[in-house]
Amino acid sequence: MSDAGLPPIGYATRPDAVRARLDGATLLVSNPSNIRWLTSFGGSLGWVVVGPERCALITDGRYAERAAADIESASLADVVDVVVGTTRPQIRDHVIAVAGGGDVRAEADHLTHAQWLDLSGALSLTLDTGTITTLRRVKDRGELARMEHAASIADAALTEVAPMLAARPTEADVRDELEYRMHRAGADGPSYDTIVASGPDNAARPHHHTGRRTVLEGDTVIIDVGALVDGYHSDMTRSFVVGEPTVEQSAIYELVLEAQLAGLDAVRPGVSARQVDTACRGMFGDRGYGDWYLHGTGHGVGLDIHEDPFASQASTAELLVGDVVTVEPGLYRGGFGGFRIEDLVEVTATGARRLTHLSKDSPCLPSPPTT
Amino acid sequence: MSDAGLPPIGYATRPDAVRARLDGATLLVSNPSNIRWLTSFGGSLGWVVVGPERCALITDGRYAERAAADIESASLADVVDVVVGTTRPQIRDHVIAVAGGGDVRAEADHLTHAQWLDLSGALSLTLDTGTITTLRRVKDRGELARMEHAASIADAALTEVAPMLAARPTEADVRDELEYRMHRAGADGPSYDTIVASGPDNAARPHHHTGRRTVLEGDTVIIDVGALVDGYHSDMTRSFVVGEPTVEQSAIYELVLEAQLAGLDAVRPGVSARQVDTACRGMFGDRGYGDWYLHGTGHGVGLDIHEDPFASQASTAELLVGDVVTVEPGLYRGGFGGFRIEDLVEVTATGARRLTHLSKDSPCLPSPPTT
Repeated sequence: MSDAGLPPIGYATRPDAVRARLDGATLLVSNPSNIRWLTSFGGSLGWVVVGPERCALITDGRYAERAAADIESASLADVVDVVVGTTRPQIRDHVIAVAGGGDVRAEADHLTHAQWLDLSGALSLTLDTGTITTLRRVKDRGELARMEHAASIADAALTEVAPMLAARPTEADVRDELEYRMHRAGADGPSYDTIVASGPDNAARPHHHTGRRTVLEGDTVIIDVGALVDGYHSDMTRSFVVGEPTVEQSAIYELVLEAQLAGLDAVRPGVSARQVDTACRGMFGDRGYGDWYLHGTGHGVGLDIHEDPFASQASTAELLVGDVVTVEPGLYRGGFGGFRIEDLVEVTATGARRLTHLSKDSPCLPSPPTT
Repeated sequence: MSDAGLPPIGYATRPDAVRARLDGATLLVSNPSNIRWLTSFGGSLGWVVVGPERCALITDGRYAERAAADIESASLADVVDVVVGTTRPQIRDHVIAVAGGGDVRAEADHLTHAQWLDLSGALSLTLDTGTITTLRRVKDRGELARMEHAASIADAALTEVAPMLAARPTEADVRDELEYRMHRAGADGPSYDTIVASGPDNAARPHHHTGRRTVLEGDTVIIDVGALVDGYHSDMTRSFVVGEPTVEQSAIYELVLEAQLAGLDAVRPGVSARQVDTACRGMFGDRGYGDWYLHGTGHGVGLDIHEDPFASQASTAELLVGDVVTVEPGLYRGGFGGFRIEDLVEVTATGARRLTHLSKDSPCLPSPPTT
């Protein structure tokens, strides 16, 4: 909606791509991101039933017009029926009626246990093991264009806003300006709650909740920000020192940057996501900073801000051409603060293509943009 | 964090209030809103285990410092242990170790079926039927103060922004100004994606996705907006006509207002939520507009924007003192557009106390605020 001019997303072939993996079974889709991937419908309540012959989007009256319009603009009007119920029990009954009597697979990673029990009374349910989340990993041209556009909106907002860190703003001030600028640049919203974490305590928390603390001279500051475009997320982190960095601040920033570049370098198709994590984690461990690293190295991004593949020591996934992933090592210590550097990259045939283009060479604040 | 000056939320008694409903069993809490209600912790990944003797919050390294600080400021440091794992499998193992070997209840309305199967291998799991969501319905003083504060932030933002509808903004322009003003007034964010739905097609969709359409003279416009304060939501809708309302627009607005007042009048403890829906739906049906009403009449609001009790013809809940609910009838028709009027109210011993204070007497645009 916000992005005439971007190439279309290839919805039309998706129901058949799903069918091709079902061996004649019916798939009950309840995960909203999977519903959006399949049909473009972005409402908060819906089900999709993909059967051997029929595919239906089932939603409630609030969404009747929007669902029909979304299906139409996704060129799916001949492929996906829209079925509308008024109450939740009615919608459940529609789902059961459309799914019918055969082998029905349901998304065990999304459906609650209570829903599973309820539907099991009426349908012959079996576990679906990530049919759509697997297909979703490989982004098409339209999806990549939206994610790159979202990344560029966040890049531009942070370029404009970062210089204000020198003017003693609160963390919330910085967040508010970032989110407003992303909206004005055409984002549907921030991709997640923007993180502005400053100073010896807050920046030591990788997922600090942005608050009212005033940013001070000498602080380390972590800003983790992304934009949302047509349901697609971007994700990026830059870290700063307010004023002249100390020797320790410079050294630790350099180490995080070195690790991040090593992580990026490890990204290529066929590599395990675990190896990307090892590239960063090993470097921190070698330098004696292993216990300053409090999280995994990255995750897939798309219609969800966190989706497959995840890069940690527990990962089993291999990277694929078309995956879009973050590489985001960081070091954190109470009393010091922290740094994280995160780029969003597309996995290509030869390695990683960055969708984040903002400079990361130094923790020094950029100059205010000239107007 | 944003709201020094508001009365504290009574976290300290909550673990015991939960235990009192468990008959010696252990409860595994996975719903993030239930975790927040119980411990004040607002991170995106966590589990709480409430056992007969021990209560533990289990999260990952990103949240270690924040979890400890949240527990401390909720005066729960002596009551809730914080346990930190690095990978998801580690966290799962901590959950199993803390839950131990007895009767363990899990939130079947939140836990996915896959998680249920996984944990069932190690624990003797039974269904929990809404222990915490039931307790959450009754808001304490601290919670009510945050919701009323959130409602007042949204009231003020819409008061300031509504006059701009006369200046041919896009829907997104209006949304951006509302969300920016709410942030600047101390909200942690919008309570949900702000809905600005204008004109004969968009305003006919109760849950329109705010877009780039320009608001024109003669349009009906629905604005559904809320603020988020310390995790607590507000929810409010006002509807407008740009320029002089037509006779039909005025008549339909009056009917929606009359129904909304009837709905508010029906709110009192002991009444079924279904009766509140009937008060509005019946009035629309009597006047021949039954099929213009596309949704239920209201829902509970708190840490979730939609929570128990829900007011529709399918409702079985009775209203309780301390429930906070919306009353939000609307009429919608393609070609006409639509109107919805929604207030947030607290159920008191004698009826409904409005937390939304914005005027709703007329669909005419308010005058620009004098500065």
